Amino acid sequence: MTLPSPRETLLALRDQTPLVHCITNYVAMNSTANLLLAAGASPAMLHAQEEVAEFTAIAGALSINIGTLSTPWAEAMQLAAQSAQAHAVPWVLDPVAVGATRLRQQTCLSLLAYQPSVIRANASEIMALSGLAHQGRGVDATVSTDDAIQAAITLARRYHCVVAMTGATDIVTDGQSLYRLTGGHPLMPRVTTLGCGLSALVAGFVAANRHAPLTATLGALTYFNLAGSRAGQQAEGPGSFYVALLDTLYSLTADDLPALPHSETLHVG
Amino acid sequence: MTLPSPRETLLALRDQTPLVHCITNYVAMNSTANLLLAAGASPAMLHAQEEVAEFTAIAGALSINIGTLSTPWAEAMQLAAQSAQAHAVPWVLDPVAVGATRLRQQTCLSLLAYQPSVIRANASEIMALSGLAHQGRGVDATVSTDDAIQAAITLARRYHCVVAMTGATDIVTDGQSLYRLTGGHPLMPRVTTLGCGLSALVAGFVAANRHAPLTATLGALTYFNLAGSRAGQQAEGPGSFYVALLDTLYSLTADDLPALPHSETLHVG
Amino acid sequence: MTLPSPRETLLALRDQTPLVHCITNYVAMNSTANLLLAAGASPAMLHAQEEVAEFTAIAGALSINIGTLSTPWAEAMQLAAQSAQAHAVPWVLDPVAVGATRLRQQTCLSLLAYQPSVIRANASEIMALSGLAHQGRGVDATVSTDDAIQAAITLARRYHCVVAMTGATDIVTDGQSLYRLTGGHPLMPRVTTLGCGLSALVAGFVAANRHAPLTATLGALTYFNLAGSRAGQQAEGPGSFYVALLDTLYSLTADDLPALPHSETLHVG
Repeated sequence: MTLPSPRETLLALRDQTPLVHCITNYVAMNSTANLLLAAGASPAMLHAQEEVAEFTAIAGALSINIGTLSTPWAEAMQLAAQSAQAHAVPWVLDPVAVGATRLRQQTCLSLLAYQPSVIRANASEIMALSGLAHQGRGVDATVSTDDAIQAAITLARRYHCVVAMTGATDIVTDGQSLYRLTGGHPLMPRVTTLGCGLSALVAGFVAANRHAPLTATLGALTYFNLAGSRAGQQAEGPGSFYVALLDTLYSLTADDLPALPHSETLHVG
Repeated sequence: MTLPSPRETLLALRDQTPLVHCITNYVAMNSTANLLLAAGASPAMLHAQEEVAEFTAIAGALSINIGTLSTPWAEAMQLAAQSAQAHAVPWVLDPVAVGATRLRQQTCLSLLAYQPSVIRANASEIMALSGLAHQGRGVDATVSTDDAIQAAITLARRYHCVVAMTGATDIVTDGQSLYRLTGGHPLMPRVTTLGCGLSALVAGFVAANRHAPLTATLGALTYFNLAGSRAGQQAEGPGSFYVALLDTLYSLTADDLPALPHSETLHVG
Repeated sequence: MTLPSPRETLLALRDQTPLVHCITNYVAMNSTANLLLAAGASPAMLHAQEEVAEFTAIAGALSINIGTLSTPWAEAMQLAAQSAQAHAVPWVLDPVAVGATRLRQQTCLSLLAYQPSVIRANASEIMALSGLAHQGRGVDATVSTDDAIQAAITLARRYHCVVAMTGATDIVTDGQSLYRLTGGHPLMPRVTTLGCGLSALVAGFVAANRHAPLTATLGALTYFNLAGSRAGQQAEGPGSFYVALLDTLYSLTADDLPALPHSETLHVG
């Protein structure tokens, strides 16, 4: 089967303007909505236990980010994830700081039971989530790149999902193939919640490319990395970087996107 | 009686810097505060049931937006609206996505009992709110412009309030006269929560022009549309648009504002 | 003892990138995180009662801002402040609008029992907090500068903390010395939550200069005032001001900072 190219995944997003139900942290809500609107998706932020399940069922995708977690929100997240699974709505998990406290570990474990389509996280979080699921403990203090890649592969296989581990180099795997993507800009970690916004953007791409969550994820990251690189060329610091990033996400077209790099085929251990 | 012109309503806002109590959604809080400050009003965001009624009583106006609703917030909104009515503080209702879930419908119905001065919403929300109040059901899938205008007039008459239905063309009516306003910019829907911020801005204008809520609303929309048009001329995308909008709201003076268009007199059916 | 200069306090911040645990209001969360990241600190926003104490214990400093207070958050703030005191983690109190409602007064009184390192507030809030603690009542309608300075000194002595009272001129005192700092820009009050962000920045400076909270506070204000002045030179309004402020916080180096002004020695009454 030929996978859709990044260009095709962006075209599908722009054609469909999918409704993305976001349950995300307070810090990220405004910037996540703006990133989705700039890209061409339609964000909706709501979290009340009385309405999340009802709303997830009509959304194109769901994005759950546990940044400013609390017990009522954790319950709403579970209701939404359950509804997503029940209605075959794809969903993305962003396990912010999952290694930091027990509340976060328990919440993520509960959510994983509802089978996310994609997990988007940084290396420490992927390690914590994998270690957690393995052995009930947190992340090791020292994270080597190889260990983190192995953790990503393990998670992808255990939960039959795509894992996008982002950083200076992004690793994307479905447990069978593995891609390494570069791009972006050193100013990105100096702007808050870009990773949170990227998780929601992945949800938008998966909504518009439902039968190909792996390439939808790759498309979202390719597009975001290119926008980041270009924004960085115009920026004088994190303030102007964020402005330029929104402008660039808006103005980039599918033709601007590069092809995917070659994938590495993984040997199942 | 001669109504104040848009210029006079902006002068009044700038003279009085009214305190606007905002109970709004998490996505919109920061941008709403920034829009009010740029325009010349004084925002205050607070929502705890223990203090909302106390605070609304000393505010120039109250703005309620149900975007990221939950049960505790719905209760606080009712306490605040009740306090506004009791203390003759004007208030604005922004019924975000009222057609989407039962929680939103019930909350809006409860709030309408406290007689808002202005309802600011888009066409779908106006239709849902009107249909709701009529027939206990949601919005029809297909919204024609004429149907939406009729719904706006119906709401204005039933609740003795001003209805501002904003979009590419804005419709403002108090049930007796109807105004059509144009302006703004196509980038505005690509920036999150500008409509939410506009609702709070209307509250600011009504606070500073308490005996003329209709023209206060018209003044706020005239000013916002002009700022949007000018910001659009400088913007390269939604990021730079938002920056330019704040700068323009700040730098526009009353002399920059155009006169109102002619109104249409409505025949009471 | 020679106190560290503002330059040295910024160098320490940049070297250590301290983790700053922020419990702040919804309006300020995004901008506070961005200010800290631009400056060189590492923000973390979390507030759940189940995890705050656990997290404060591992943070470099804690910053508590009561802007959008509610009862569950007030309880979380107390747990965090208690943990900060127990683990000798420095913490900053920002008593937003403490004079406005009883909920705010009671919350601040409870928090003061856990001995903040620094109180950062405007003149009205300092007066309210001092009056509160004195006489159980709110702020007088008319605040004279001399009265406000006296209130700042009183608070600093009573709670053995640094008080930073910011405005057109900033007053910083530990009850024994008093500094007057100028700088910043008239556009700063037209951008929301810069004061809230400054409180968290003070927490970052105190984290990186733990044995000198007075000079850490002075360093943070000197740096912020300079960034504000420079941003103002490039800005056309509050939108471009905020962008330029983040860029300037990012690009300023320790060498750009001026020396401290002479302090005034206070006579203990």
